[in-house]
Amino acid sequence: MNVVVTGARGYLGSALIAALGASGCDVVATDRDDGDIADPMHVRRLFEAPIDRVFHLAGIVSGAAEADWDAGRRVNLDATLLLLDRCRAQARRGGPIVRFVHASSIAVFGTPLPARIDDATEPWPTLSYGTTKRIVELLLSDLARRGEVDGRALRLSGVVVRPPLANGALSAFNSDVIREPLAGRDYVCPVGPDATIWVASKRTTIANLLRFADVDGEAIGAQRAVTAPALAVSIGELVAALGRVDPGAPAHVRFAADARLEAQFGRWPRDASFARAESLGLVRDASIDAIIREYATP
Amino acid sequence: MNVVVTGARGYLGSALIAALGASGCDVVATDRDDGDIADPMHVRRLFEAPIDRVFHLAGIVSGAAEADWDAGRRVNLDATLLLLDRCRAQARRGGPIVRFVHASSIAVFGTPLPARIDDATEPWPTLSYGTTKRIVELLLSDLARRGEVDGRALRLSGVVVRPPLANGALSAFNSDVIREPLAGRDYVCPVGPDATIWVASKRTTIANLLRFADVDGEAIGAQRAVTAPALAVSIGELVAALGRVDPGAPAHVRFAADARLEAQFGRWPRDASFARAESLGLVRDASIDAIIREYATP
Repeated sequence: MNVVVTGARGYLGSALIAALGASGCDVVATDRDDGDIADPMHVRRLFEAPIDRVFHLAGIVSGAAEADWDAGRRVNLDATLLLLDRCRAQARRGGPIVRFVHASSIAVFGTPLPARIDDATEPWPTLSYGTTKRIVELLLSDLARRGEVDGRALRLSGVVVRPPLANGALSAFNSDVIREPLAGRDYVCPVGPDATIWVASKRTTIANLLRFADVDGEAIGAQRAVTAPALAVSIGELVAALGRVDPGAPAHVRFAADARLEAQFGRWPRDASFARAESLGLVRDASIDAIIREYATP
Repeated sequence: MNVVVTGARGYLGSALIAALGASGCDVVATDRDDGDIADPMHVRRLFEAPIDRVFHLAGIVSGAAEADWDAGRRVNLDATLLLLDRCRAQARRGGPIVRFVHASSIAVFGTPLPARIDDATEPWPTLSYGTTKRIVELLLSDLARRGEVDGRALRLSGVVVRPPLANGALSAFNSDVIREPLAGRDYVCPVGPDATIWVASKRTTIANLLRFADVDGEAIGAQRAVTAPALAVSIGELVAALGRVDPGAPAHVRFAADARLEAQFGRWPRDASFARAESLGLVRDASIDAIIREYATP
């Protein structure tokens, strides 16, 4: 099976490629250092062999897309359209209908965040990043309905514990607040102890992406966007969990809450249902303790 | 005030331009016979003078966009992005923030149509036409939030009574079923007498577009898409109303219902609220009788 992975050198991309390789897939990997994903010639080269699946992980994330709308649109929308055009061209030539797995985001939900999120909650993004994610969800549903691309979008929450890479994600504190105190470094958290975040581990996220690619399109239904199961945890609970792994860690955390950041990134509801994702076999991490222990255990 | 109108030679466009001209606006009109709206150079020429408002009416409608996805995307999405880019460029150069009125459509609601539609009803399009309309609604909300374009999208229902122009609209029967019997011609209606449609007259629609352009963006709110007030009427009621204007007209109507067409175009709910639109001063026609009488009176 030939699989294209964009954002291949990223935190998720590199782990996904390892998993795909281990299962015998031929992976066509691309990231910004080997070509411009918004360049039609580069995208065309990715489809030289007939492609069965695409995992489209490349993106300009929240903070970067807020700062530079054109850059966000170019990668998050224009490049995605180029990839979809290649999938459609392949199908028109009699090649395989591509299963196109898009890494969407819970940023499709905007502020004020809903008091409950389930599969019927209307996404109304209030970030440019979330807007382009929602647009791609709509495009994938339309092209799936038409039978041109077997598109599906999985809305990922914060994946932790990311390395301290400055990729412009406003949610980076999710990982920072775990990594820094465990490394014995002081950390000023930009959301308060009552803030509630949605998180998932890298291992769970990769398993969910692979599972989501395996399920039949009919099982997903006409609305090809699914919210991945996430663990809701307050920052206070998270810091307490840090203390169970490293009793000295909590003392490294101080708070300087930014109200605007907290509104989008720290008000995720505990009242949530991931029924559609769970019916497709997608899973949630057992606990924040399990996530932290897995990270802290060499 | 300098106003750009796209789709200027259309049924709505020509009436809108007359109304704008009468109120003293300088109108920059464009339609497919004077330039390609998806050509960046053509769009650039529309913005030679500083533009205050854009009424973007040009579009590839439902049937045509289903038949040719690329054509629909090119006009309904790519051309709209070009127009928005010009608006943004003008603002960056210190020019006016453009009030951008987009002619959206109730086709943002897909099948099965909701049993009730109000301002909280989530749009889930099941036509490519409705998909691109929804995408533009999201883009306008994002750019309005950013302060780059004062975008607003008005979801129009079937505007009757259109001339018998083959523009590819699957909802064309809305007008045909009025025009043809009144002209003494037999008409085979593709939805049954129980089918319920949403309609508005041209006069009301033009008044609503002008009013919608006049309201302050703050009054519209963060979600820059509003469903225009529409009149829900069954085809049976409509045919009875024809008979009150021309007693011979109803005998010209026969039925050959197409279930797929009826699902999208003939299942509009009577249970509806247009509260947001009404709070902004937008109005609905008094009755189907009034619409038909106005059309039939020379």
